[in-house]
Amino acid sequence: MFKAKVIIKRRPSILDPQGKAVEKGAFHLGLTNVKDTRIGKFIEFTVDTDDRQSAEKEVNEYCIKLLSNPIMEDYEFTLESAK
Amino acid sequence: MFKAKVIIKRRPSILDPQGKAVEKGAFHLGLTNVKDTRIGKFIEFTVDTDDRQSAEKEVNEYCIKLLSNPIMEDYEFTLESAK
Repeated sequence: MFKAKVIIKRRPSILDPQGKAVEKGAFHLGLTNVKDTRIGKFIEFTVDTDDRQSAEKEVNEYCIKLLSNPIMEDYEFTLESAK
Repeated sequence: MFKAKVIIKRRPSILDPQGKAVEKGAFHLGLTNVKDTRIGKFIEFTVDTDDRQSAEKEVNEYCIKLLSNPIMEDYEFTLESAK
């Protein structure tokens, strides 16, 4: 069994209005040093197989078809062995 | 200047209906080994100060007041020096 951790980010060239909005809130709270906030996703799950290669294939398919929007987002993941 | 990376997760005791829904989709796509999907947030930003202690204070305040919901979420962050 593997534990997968996926990070999904918008591509650097794509604007992040949600990040901009939260940052404006930070500024009004007096957190004036915070800049360039970008909000992405962090997804954890287990993959119930002992073959790393097929686990990687499954994670890639999950990311491309369901978790990320391949048009404007990039994903990266780590796979750790878990018992 | 520091680069902050924040991960926000729901507490383990709190249900994640979004994760459950996506996982059901995965099952119907034939990704039957994927289990226990939990969806959180990954947030990046820069903190424009050279004092690590004040940067940490600012990140904590940002997380507690704006980025996370302290009632049901936990956050963790890393701070890397950036020029």
